[in-house]
Amino acid sequence: MTTTNKWAIHNGKFAVNEGATWTIVQGYMVIEDDKIVHIGETLPEGNEHLTLVDGKGLLFLPGLINTHGHAAMSLLRGHGDDLALQVWLQEKMWPMEAKMTSEDVYWGASLSVLEMLKGGTTAFLDMYDHMDQVAKVVEQSGARAALARGVIGLCSEEEQMRKLEESAAFARQWNGQAAGRITTVISPHAPYTCPPDYIEKLVQVAHDLDLPLHTHMSETLREVEQNVTDYGLRPVAHLEKHGFFSRPSMVAHAVHLNDEEIEILARHDVAVSHNPGSNLKLASGVARVPALLKAGVTVSLGTDGPASNNNLDMFEEMRLAALIHKGVSGDPTAVPAGEALLLGTGYGAKSIFLNDTGSLKVGMKADFIALNIEQAHFYPHTDLISHTIYSASAKDVEHVWVDGKQVVKHGECLTLDEERILREAQRTFDQLLAR
Amino acid sequence: MTTTNKWAIHNGKFAVNEGATWTIVQGYMVIEDDKIVHIGETLPEGNEHLTLVDGKGLLFLPGLINTHGHAAMSLLRGHGDDLALQVWLQEKMWPMEAKMTSEDVYWGASLSVLEMLKGGTTAFLDMYDHMDQVAKVVEQSGARAALARGVIGLCSEEEQMRKLEESAAFARQWNGQAAGRITTVISPHAPYTCPPDYIEKLVQVAHDLDLPLHTHMSETLREVEQNVTDYGLRPVAHLEKHGFFSRPSMVAHAVHLNDEEIEILARHDVAVSHNPGSNLKLASGVARVPALLKAGVTVSLGTDGPASNNNLDMFEEMRLAALIHKGVSGDPTAVPAGEALLLGTGYGAKSIFLNDTGSLKVGMKADFIALNIEQAHFYPHTDLISHTIYSASAKDVEHVWVDGKQVVKHGECLTLDEERILREAQRTFDQLLAR
Repeated sequence: MTTTNKWAIHNGKFAVNEGATWTIVQGYMVIEDDKIVHIGETLPEGNEHLTLVDGKGLLFLPGLINTHGHAAMSLLRGHGDDLALQVWLQEKMWPMEAKMTSEDVYWGASLSVLEMLKGGTTAFLDMYDHMDQVAKVVEQSGARAALARGVIGLCSEEEQMRKLEESAAFARQWNGQAAGRITTVISPHAPYTCPPDYIEKLVQVAHDLDLPLHTHMSETLREVEQNVTDYGLRPVAHLEKHGFFSRPSMVAHAVHLNDEEIEILARHDVAVSHNPGSNLKLASGVARVPALLKAGVTVSLGTDGPASNNNLDMFEEMRLAALIHKGVSGDPTAVPAGEALLLGTGYGAKSIFLNDTGSLKVGMKADFIALNIEQAHFYPHTDLISHTIYSASAKDVEHVWVDGKQVVKHGECLTLDEERILREAQRTFDQLLAR
Repeated sequence: MTTTNKWAIHNGKFAVNEGATWTIVQGYMVIEDDKIVHIGETLPEGNEHLTLVDGKGLLFLPGLINTHGHAAMSLLRGHGDDLALQVWLQEKMWPMEAKMTSEDVYWGASLSVLEMLKGGTTAFLDMYDHMDQVAKVVEQSGARAALARGVIGLCSEEEQMRKLEESAAFARQWNGQAAGRITTVISPHAPYTCPPDYIEKLVQVAHDLDLPLHTHMSETLREVEQNVTDYGLRPVAHLEKHGFFSRPSMVAHAVHLNDEEIEILARHDVAVSHNPGSNLKLASGVARVPALLKAGVTVSLGTDGPASNNNLDMFEEMRLAALIHKGVSGDPTAVPAGEALLLGTGYGAKSIFLNDTGSLKVGMKADFIALNIEQAHFYPHTDLISHTIYSASAKDVEHVWVDGKQVVKHGECLTLDEERILREAQRTFDQLLAR
C-alpha cells in the first residue's frame, strides 16, 4: 500500500494506562492504517486535513481481550444449566459435541464472534475442533484471534498422531493469516485428558513451530486430586516436568493452586486465564487471583464457552473479577477497578502472546472501542474507569475498531450478517438435537 | 372511571410461574386498566375488537423488584471505590450525604428511578432521608415503590423524637398515594445505629399505623460482634427481643447468620433482601442464601445504593445470586435460574409487602417488562429463563409497563426527562463536591 489511511477522533475521552493506573486524556486520537499514531489534548500540526470522527459522549478504551473460550459452544447456550458437572458434561454437552460438523462450528463461531465484537471484545483465544471454520469466521469478521486445535489424547496412538498432525497443520496454515490478525497456538486439552508422553509430543510441536502453548489446568479440585493419584504430582509440577513451561504458555482456570504452584507459574512467566463466571456457574471454586497478581503472574480474563457462562460479556468478567475477590477475601481493596480493566485489556494481550494490542498507546494496533457514557448508569461522570468496571455492560459499546477498521458502528456489526447468523444458529441447534 | 382501558398483546412469549417453576406461554395477554385479565394461547371470545400490540421477538416477564436501596446515592456513584469500608464511609460517603438537600435527593432519586425503569425494575423499596422528594419522583415516573424514612438514633432524645415523628408523618401522608403505587414502611436504620428503646418506639409506630418494618441487619461480621458486646445478643435475637418481628418485616443483607438465627427468621416469616453485588464490593461476605431458602425464608434481591454496587441492574443481581452460591458451596445446582428469577420477582413483591405484583397471573397488577430476545446472546432459543438469568442485562429491556401504563418504550423512558436528569445529576454532584 503506497497511500495510507489516516484519520482522527476529536472530542473524545481516551483511557490510557501505565499498568493498572489509568488516566483519561481528553482530545484527539490519530489512526494511520492499523496503528495508533497520536493521543493527546491537541492535534499535532500538519494533521488539519484529516477526516475527524466526533467522539463526543464516548469513552474510548482498548478493545477487550477474551483469553479462553470455545466459540462454537454458543450453540449449546442454555442447553442444560444448573446440573451437576458430570451430568451436564455426559448427558448434555458431549453427546451434542460429538455430533457437531464443520458447518455447525462455523455457525456457532459466527454467533459468538458476533456477540464478542458487538460487546467490545476485539481479540480472543479459541480452543476447539474444526478450527479452520473458526479461522474463517475470524477472517470474515475482522476480529483478532489466537486459535488452537484443542486435542484430547484419550485414544489410540494412531488417533493421537492424527490429531497432533492436524493441530500442527492448522497452526502452520493459519499463523499470520487474515492480515496478521490470526495467530496460532498448540493446545493439549488438559493434563487429565492427555497422557504425559502425548503432552511432551505436543510441546515438541510447539518448539518445532516456534509457537506458544495453552491448556486447561486445575479447574476442579477433583482433577487435581486425580492428577496426584495418577502421576504423583499436582498439575503445575506435572506440566513443568513434561516441559510445558519451556515454551511461552498460558493456562486456563487455575482455580486450585497452592503457594508452591503459584511460585512455579511466576518463575516460568506462565499466564493464567481467570474465568470467574464459568468457575462460579460450574461450582469449580474461586481462583486465588490476588495471590497470583501479588506473585507477579500475568492474569487475564476469559468467558470460557458460552454454554458455561452463558454470555460473552467481558465487562461482566471484569466486574466479577473485581467483586468476588473482595467478597471472598474480606478486603474491599482487592482487585480495584484499574486492575480489573488491565486484566481485561493489556494483560489479556500478553496472555495470548500479543505485544502490540491491549492499550491505547502510540505504535499499538488500533484495536479500540467506544462506550456511550451519556446514560443514567454512567452518571455523574466521576471516575469513568470505576464506571467501566462496576456499571457498564457489553450493550454500552457503541463502536468497535480492530486493526484500524471499524467493525461495529452504533451497535451494529458491519462485517457479519446478524439476522442470518441468528437464524442459522437456531437451525443448527434444532438439527443437532434431532440428529 | 366508567370506561375501561382494555388492550392485548399478541405473538408474545410470556413467562408464567408456579413458585420457581416457569413455563413460557406463547400467545396473548389481555390487560384491563391496571390488571392482567388473561394470559393464554388464544384470545378469549368477545375480545376481537381490542387494540393488539405485537409481541414478536419479545419475552414478557414480571417487572423486577429491587427490595433494598437508597436511590439518591446514585449521585455518589464512583465517588471513591475500592477503599476500606470505614475510609469509604467516613471520608467519602458521610461528608457528602451530610451536605445533601431536598433538591439533591430529588435529582439523585430521579437518576436512579430512570435507570431502574429502563432496566426493567418496576417496583423498589427505598430507605433514605428527604423521602418526600423520592415519593415525588415515584409519582412522576409511574414506578411502584415502598418508601421508608430511614432513621438513625445516635442523637439526643429530642432529635430522636423529631425523626420518629417525621417518619410517621411521611408514612401517613404517602401511604396509598400515586394511585396506590406508593406504600410506606417504618425503618430504623440498623440495630447498631438505633438504641434498643428507640427501636421499640419505632416498632410501636409501625403497630399504630399498621405498617411493616425494614432495617439493615448483620451486613458485616464486625457489627454482629459489636451487637454481642453491647447487648449480649446477636442481631436477630436482639431484634426479636425488641419486638421488631411482631410486625411484617424485612431485613437487608443478613450476611452473617448462624443456624439458630435462620430458624428465628423463618419462624417469624421475616423476609431477607439479599444484596450480592454490594456485599461483594464492600467485602462484607456471602450471605447463606441456599440455607435461608431451604428454611423457607422469603429471599429477594436488592442492589443497595448505587454508590456500593455501582449500578441498578437487577439482572446482574439475579445472575450474581445464581452464580456465587454455586461457586462458594461447590454445588452447581444451588440457586437455579428459575429460583433466581423468583427472587427478583415474586419473592421481591412479598418482601416489600405487596401481594398483587411480581408475577404474570390473571388478577395481578399489570407490572411487566419485555426483553428483546432477537439478539446473539439469547440464541439459540433453548431455555429462555436460563438466558434471562445467565445472559441478559438491563439493556435488553425494550418495554416496561407499570399499573397497566407503559413507562418505557423501545428503551426510552416516557415519563422522565432523561437528558435533563443527567445534566442535573452532574450539576448536583459538582455542587455537592464544591459546597
